[in-house]
Amino acid sequence: MNVAVKIKSGAELRRLARSGEFTDQTAGQAPDHLQANVVILALKHAGDFLQYCLNNPKPCPLIGLSRPGETGIAGLGTDIDIRKDIPRYRVYRDGVLSGHADDIAGLWSDDLVTFVLGCSFTFEEALIRAGFGVRHIEQQRNVPMFKTRMQTMPGGVFHGPLVVTMRPYRADLIPSVFDLCAKYPHAHGTPVFWGDPADIGIEDLQSPDYGDPVDLRPGEVPVFWACGVTPQAAIEAARPSICITHAPGHMLVTDVMSDNPPKIDIGMADLQIEQP
Amino acid sequence: MNVAVKIKSGAELRRLARSGEFTDQTAGQAPDHLQANVVILALKHAGDFLQYCLNNPKPCPLIGLSRPGETGIAGLGTDIDIRKDIPRYRVYRDGVLSGHADDIAGLWSDDLVTFVLGCSFTFEEALIRAGFGVRHIEQQRNVPMFKTRMQTMPGGVFHGPLVVTMRPYRADLIPSVFDLCAKYPHAHGTPVFWGDPADIGIEDLQSPDYGDPVDLRPGEVPVFWACGVTPQAAIEAARPSICITHAPGHMLVTDVMSDNPPKIDIGMADLQIEQP
Repeated sequence: MNVAVKIKSGAELRRLARSGEFTDQTAGQAPDHLQANVVILALKHAGDFLQYCLNNPKPCPLIGLSRPGETGIAGLGTDIDIRKDIPRYRVYRDGVLSGHADDIAGLWSDDLVTFVLGCSFTFEEALIRAGFGVRHIEQQRNVPMFKTRMQTMPGGVFHGPLVVTMRPYRADLIPSVFDLCAKYPHAHGTPVFWGDPADIGIEDLQSPDYGDPVDLRPGEVPVFWACGVTPQAAIEAARPSICITHAPGHMLVTDVMSDNPPKIDIGMADLQIEQP
Repeated sequence: MNVAVKIKSGAELRRLARSGEFTDQTAGQAPDHLQANVVILALKHAGDFLQYCLNNPKPCPLIGLSRPGETGIAGLGTDIDIRKDIPRYRVYRDGVLSGHADDIAGLWSDDLVTFVLGCSFTFEEALIRAGFGVRHIEQQRNVPMFKTRMQTMPGGVFHGPLVVTMRPYRADLIPSVFDLCAKYPHAHGTPVFWGDPADIGIEDLQSPDYGDPVDLRPGEVPVFWACGVTPQAAIEAARPSICITHAPGHMLVTDVMSDNPPKIDIGMADLQIEQP
């Protein structure tokens, strides 16, 4: 499918992903529709991961949760089939990336639980709409991401460093950027830090741990947001026997408007608890 | 005033506190009305503290924020006078407790910014209503609180350990306790940990850092929640020239129902930024 094609709604994008016609990145598609990170885990690890997300709402803003084996996600779209509706999936075995797929129907079991987490596209769209440029988009690169020396709060077996994204802004604009992002706590919300990267354990802005470096211009300050790659680092540490995620940039596109996330129904009692 | 007197609403309690007739702890008063922690700081530190709260929503769930010098708190009550409506205040100078007061009108300046944070009374009321006992209330003690080895995410000059409260529950009840508390993210929300206290750096449950020890019965597991004393530890570390808080247990009682917190309007652009 031609990536230049503009898809208008989440329902349409998911229909095309489901039929195998759309396998591209989702940035810019279905504007104003909430896009999201997805993590699918076996019941054995779902209780711990639920706790990890709720302990770390900045990197892991939980906006959807399935019951075990359920292929829909309440509140995010009427007809979601989580086995097919993401354009591209990653499969991890024992915490190690083992392959990609356009469809995970063959891997599905009644034991799997789906977690849906807000993503940075939401506040980036809002920043651009408000006239604050987003450097990596202007430079047609992936956002630069860095492991920090800040540690997340553990959730059972899940633990690891906070991973952040970086976008540069003029110092005088930062308070307004902060206030705008405060409207999107379901999409990483406000920046967690700005200033000298060394203060949070980042040695070289031009050598990100993931993604691409971007230019800093005179008078600009690096501004850092909690990043949806954080749970990936926690999954690598916890080594669950199976974990399925969206492929980077290939998000779940929902029927929900970006500024109106659903209230979700937490169901620890439906999950299996590893601790204590 | 006789502490046995039952006050029905936040407005009534604040009127009595304002006139000096009520100077007691607020637990059990104005049932179902949201009670809250209060931190008042000079503009110089308000930007950093706003960032600290938003970086750490589990210990510091921000439910109200004033503009500099403003004595009301939008969204929490029509007639709040933050200089007089709390039954008892604590005054810190350079991060050290320097005194108590029933009224801070004499200390007020147009430079002060008020932060209102959710508190554990909210989920404790819900737990009791749902039939889950709360041990320290049954034993008529203060909740036991512990510094952990988990660190909060810094916000400018504010940083420090996560402080937690502990309430024991039978292991089989924990998932239901977790799900109930998930309804109150504006009041510390779900437990952050349960199991062996040593895992989070707590040596002896019978020697809390603040509050009183409570009994654990056979088959019970200690369950830990993020605690509103956490920002106090951060204030001690940051040593702001002035900081005024409620005295422990003497909360701001609002006009808002406990399960319906207001949306708040973040205003970093109105505050002074210390970093970078």
